Amino acid sequence: MSLTVVGSIAYDAVSTPSGVRERMLGGAATHFALAASFFDEVRVIGPVGEDFDGASWETLRTRGTITDDVELVAGGRTFFWKGEYHDNLNSRETHVTELNVFEHFEPKLSELSRACDVLFLANIQPDLQRSVREQCADARFVAMDSMDLWINIARDALIETIRGVDCLILNDEELEMLAEKPSFVSAAREILSWGPSAVVAKQGKYGAALFTADGYFALPAYPLEDVVDPTGAGDSFAGGFVGYVAAHPEREIDHDLLVRAMVYGTALASYNVEAFGTERVVALTPGEVTGRVDELQRMTTFAHEPIALRG
Amino acid sequence: MSLTVVGSIAYDAVSTPSGVRERMLGGAATHFALAASFFDEVRVIGPVGEDFDGASWETLRTRGTITDDVELVAGGRTFFWKGEYHDNLNSRETHVTELNVFEHFEPKLSELSRACDVLFLANIQPDLQRSVREQCADARFVAMDSMDLWINIARDALIETIRGVDCLILNDEELEMLAEKPSFVSAAREILSWGPSAVVAKQGKYGAALFTADGYFALPAYPLEDVVDPTGAGDSFAGGFVGYVAAHPEREIDHDLLVRAMVYGTALASYNVEAFGTERVVALTPGEVTGRVDELQRMTTFAHEPIALRG
Repeated sequence: MSLTVVGSIAYDAVSTPSGVRERMLGGAATHFALAASFFDEVRVIGPVGEDFDGASWETLRTRGTITDDVELVAGGRTFFWKGEYHDNLNSRETHVTELNVFEHFEPKLSELSRACDVLFLANIQPDLQRSVREQCADARFVAMDSMDLWINIARDALIETIRGVDCLILNDEELEMLAEKPSFVSAAREILSWGPSAVVAKQGKYGAALFTADGYFALPAYPLEDVVDPTGAGDSFAGGFVGYVAAHPEREIDHDLLVRAMVYGTALASYNVEAFGTERVVALTPGEVTGRVDELQRMTTFAHEPIALRG
Repeated sequence: MSLTVVGSIAYDAVSTPSGVRERMLGGAATHFALAASFFDEVRVIGPVGEDFDGASWETLRTRGTITDDVELVAGGRTFFWKGEYHDNLNSRETHVTELNVFEHFEPKLSELSRACDVLFLANIQPDLQRSVREQCADARFVAMDSMDLWINIARDALIETIRGVDCLILNDEELEMLAEKPSFVSAAREILSWGPSAVVAKQGKYGAALFTADGYFALPAYPLEDVVDPTGAGDSFAGGFVGYVAAHPEREIDHDLLVRAMVYGTALASYNVEAFGTERVVALTPGEVTGRVDELQRMTTFAHEPIALRG
């Protein structure tokens, strides 16, 4: 078993109705690794600058995540993002994006990272994603994320990358944009015809839906009274989802396995948003994860008692 | 068993990406009755004008719905609404609202309508809703809908009406507006403290969530590739939901019963949006309803297999 992720490692400045953080560890690869490390040993690929501090290295290595392939760029500064959430967290405004060491990032994978069993391509430029995917030729499950930016400026490259993976995990509105379809249902089914065997539509506070050739599964989000910081929720979801697959190396990756993976992804994402940045998932315990999975099951299960309907 | 609904009976002109209808039967009470009539005998209270034609009467009476208390206003015209859906049905624009006979509507209930076991107050002015609720003193379950308009211009009257019912069914964003809370979860829990024993948050294409003192249940919407016309989906949901309760006069109205009611509401709403106006639900069969309930169960059920997580 081994799980490799390539993606951003960042410092974030975030303002939400719950408060403000001027500089905290973030980035897609970070949030993914923190969630996935409950399931498997994770190897992180991504660049950081000389400002990347000891506490951040320590957080990144939570639950044994391996950072040997994290590239420390001499003279560089770590990717920085500053954003603000408005309107009950329904909209997000970016104030600052400093790519820094990410601007000229070319993923370099060690032999151990290339030999991964499962690979996650977090949201980076689609050609870079594809080059990493090709280096990990033996991976038995490859999943990827993306974003509206790449749909707008690199759609063909993105589609080419999607053709080479097993699973696309994307926001529902981005699925519609990408497939040019009026619903995430028709969009996901269109994208299945491009090559992936699974498509996950992320729906934010509403939950997530899974499409495979064998069926459909949807799971509502865990009901939280207060979301403190939504940043990284999608990457935590992916970490739980892909991590669960990685934890089952003997099992066929079929619809039923991905269904259960969805539940762990949902549980991890729900914890992520309970505090700023990585604060909650760093401190999370295995018992809390399985406890929330049990709760999700209770909250979504119903008995179907037959009833005579009037005709 | 008897189920009374008070609400609008209308002619709608609707434009969606799927097509246009210049004049078709609509209105909250109409859509509610068509769905609820699968479960119980429905009595409709609402006004129509002299333009209300024979085919509309016939549709309203589908599956035995009783229209004795539908008030035919001499010299009046039926409520008319013209609207257009944009942007993959995510936004709706009203072009024309002619209240007509609805402007001076005062609900008049016959003895049989007042003696109902279950009552649904569709979206009308909150003081009118309360007067009907008070006339149906023996109803063992009273549910209601409302809309942003009344939250804005009659909030105190609306809250007073909510205090007197068992269940509020409202769009999730309207729940947040009404309770002045940042999430539908905190909003629903606040509203439970006002008096109702159940709150349902409608989430459009994402599904619906149920809050009671005894728990939480959420159900994703049925996955449709193409939604033809969303008009009346919420009322069809309410018809299935409240109808299911009405069909169980011997049963305690507890969390489990309302959970199953949610599934029937979801099934009915999903059929409603497959065609314009009432076209699909008029032609629906009991077998199609239970078939979709079975499908919803398959699409939301998962086995929770224990897994050893890394600590």
